[in-house]
Amino acid sequence: MADLSTTLPLTPSSIHEAYSKIQTHVHKTPLLTNKTINQIASTSSSADTTGPSPKFNLYFKCENYQRIGAFKARGAFHAVTHLIDELGVEEMRRRGVVTHSSGNHAQALALAASSFNIPAHIVMPSISTPSKIAGTRSYTPHIYFSGSTSDEREAVVKEVIEETGAVLVPPYDHPDIMLGQGTTALELHQQYDKLKTSKDEKPNLKVVLAPLGGGGLLSGISIYFSDKSTYVIGCEPSFQGGNDGEMGFKASPQKRVEKVKTLTIADGLRTPVGEIPWKVFTSGSNTKSRNLENIYSVDEEQIKGAMKLVLERMKVFIEPSAAVPLAVVLYNQEFRRWAYEKQREEGEEIWDIAVVFSGGNTTIEAIVGLFGDSSHGVDGREERAEGKVGLDGERVAENVAG
Amino acid sequence: MADLSTTLPLTPSSIHEAYSKIQTHVHKTPLLTNKTINQIASTSSSADTTGPSPKFNLYFKCENYQRIGAFKARGAFHAVTHLIDELGVEEMRRRGVVTHSSGNHAQALALAASSFNIPAHIVMPSISTPSKIAGTRSYTPHIYFSGSTSDEREAVVKEVIEETGAVLVPPYDHPDIMLGQGTTALELHQQYDKLKTSKDEKPNLKVVLAPLGGGGLLSGISIYFSDKSTYVIGCEPSFQGGNDGEMGFKASPQKRVEKVKTLTIADGLRTPVGEIPWKVFTSGSNTKSRNLENIYSVDEEQIKGAMKLVLERMKVFIEPSAAVPLAVVLYNQEFRRWAYEKQREEGEEIWDIAVVFSGGNTTIEAIVGLFGDSSHGVDGREERAEGKVGLDGERVAENVAG
Repeated sequence: MADLSTTLPLTPSSIHEAYSKIQTHVHKTPLLTNKTINQIASTSSSADTTGPSPKFNLYFKCENYQRIGAFKARGAFHAVTHLIDELGVEEMRRRGVVTHSSGNHAQALALAASSFNIPAHIVMPSISTPSKIAGTRSYTPHIYFSGSTSDEREAVVKEVIEETGAVLVPPYDHPDIMLGQGTTALELHQQYDKLKTSKDEKPNLKVVLAPLGGGGLLSGISIYFSDKSTYVIGCEPSFQGGNDGEMGFKASPQKRVEKVKTLTIADGLRTPVGEIPWKVFTSGSNTKSRNLENIYSVDEEQIKGAMKLVLERMKVFIEPSAAVPLAVVLYNQEFRRWAYEKQREEGEEIWDIAVVFSGGNTTIEAIVGLFGDSSHGVDGREERAEGKVGLDGERVAENVAG
Repeated sequence: MADLSTTLPLTPSSIHEAYSKIQTHVHKTPLLTNKTINQIASTSSSADTTGPSPKFNLYFKCENYQRIGAFKARGAFHAVTHLIDELGVEEMRRRGVVTHSSGNHAQALALAASSFNIPAHIVMPSISTPSKIAGTRSYTPHIYFSGSTSDEREAVVKEVIEETGAVLVPPYDHPDIMLGQGTTALELHQQYDKLKTSKDEKPNLKVVLAPLGGGGLLSGISIYFSDKSTYVIGCEPSFQGGNDGEMGFKASPQKRVEKVKTLTIADGLRTPVGEIPWKVFTSGSNTKSRNLENIYSVDEEQIKGAMKLVLERMKVFIEPSAAVPLAVVLYNQEFRRWAYEKQREEGEEIWDIAVVFSGGNTTIEAIVGLFGDSSHGVDGREERAEGKVGLDGERVAENVAG
């Protein structure tokens, strides 16, 4: 991977620079709103112990409509273009790139590399599902199988590097990846401002919530907002200790949890937080005492409840990991109490908050598996909303680069 | 309902007029494209008996993002605004409107009426699901229950009219409704032209495919394109004779089938074609010998196959009825052969065709029910496409009225 000494500094202006490089390669994904979900999020649930509810207008950044169906395309294009700038496209075409992943990062890297005729070597666990193998194979012929422990994967990666000279592009723990994912924040902020201005309203984005797995996306967002007053919040699944980030962040002293083993349905968020993202979260700036305001987690039923709302009400198809931030907004009592109290303190009636839908790569089979037995809401909140009103909201007009 | 003698003539210019009336009340829904689905549609399937495949670029008109989640909002707003023009808003507020429906039309009418503070009386079969009753109740308190035969429903409607003086607004068999639904065609045509022009390409929309139930939507589209060379095609479910329109249209002489009894999964398309829509389909104009080019049908597995593709690849949530036109494009051999031969005849390499996604009002529970047992593709075509590439296409920028 690009030497750490040559990467851009972890600042908002580096994210602007990253955006100028990848803009022609990625889609500008839509920012959507939905009145029904605003209403549900602004109503006390039976589980609310705080009495009155905080009030929200939500803005959904739809990275499920990104290329390869997830935000990962941003970081991969940024990493690859940076390698080309540094080593030259000819050398990169000789050497190629390599990563180990069975998920969205592998496909994103293979897509980005193939756009420049650079070979992408992907190491996958041999137990990967046939559909994931086929998906990756559609982008690159260079697939290698390994055992499923990290030692086994890394051994195969090492072999590939020795044979080909390929450059390793990790999935999240690298500045180039983090800055690339951070363009999600830049784009949503621009779209939000434009929308508010077009309505003659004053832009004031109070909170951005994003999923937290390895931390590539969330750290990029934290960097982008580090010189702004907007609060950035990480959202995790709590199942089987999947909330490693939350536990480490809330510990005193703060300490990164290095190992996680969870089979949460939010399968994109099963990894521990990376070292460099962790540093971003726990450090501060001139504007803020810490770049990341907090981390909250939700259980499996809450994730399913949020996912069901998004599919049925917004008619937008997302994967479980992408539903985690909305689940925090709707169901996490600690978050809701914090927001309610802040709103009261600051004398604000309603907050504009953004939620990142990180991806949409799931299948009907997976949905049948998830919802096959019981598919009711978490606490009946959907039922209490005013019936079924479709997507009764605005869609923000945005062109997506072709 | 508005007297037939006072309705606008069934011409393209009446659709422009209808649009000017309803434009502020309905959403301008997006027109989307998707490279993966283009590729699948342009590849011979194992079921193709024609050898080479026709070639298509598809444009998806997403009425699932319309208010109340379906195109029905267009016709309802047009009918209500026309009644106001004719009888005055005060009289309409005294009398109200009435319809019998348990589906999208009831919600659309209740929404349109409530926007003008006009009472909406809805007659529903007492066996309607609680969620449908709750959905309708969220728009209007005036709900009446009846038996499920049409005689029983009509008896209750008659009672409501006698008591309140409410004006009946039928779901499809009326010019005001048909012209309102036809604005879908006007809007998609404008969006298509704008998109092509922005790419410096010559607009040439060859075919528009839409679902055919009662015929409100399809007749509106047929009227709009009656003075243009674009072919309009109706799409039906074949299950248990749900292809009543196709059978009547292909009979010699053509004859409307007046009764249908099918439990197709495309539950919006279980009704027979209405009388006035039927007249539109079977008549012609100066431009065309007949307004409707043809009607094709698909089986339940084909509908599921198309629906799965749209959810997984486009990340767009649609109901089974809305998947029927794409199923025709992908799987109906008669349609594919016709398109292939026309393309060869006219020396055209590839056609731009539009497909209307009519609505998105389904639930996770319904999807689990549909796909719970076997959820594989129809003939393995999805598997043969080039893997999973997300929404690798353009999104057409369009503002949706708030």
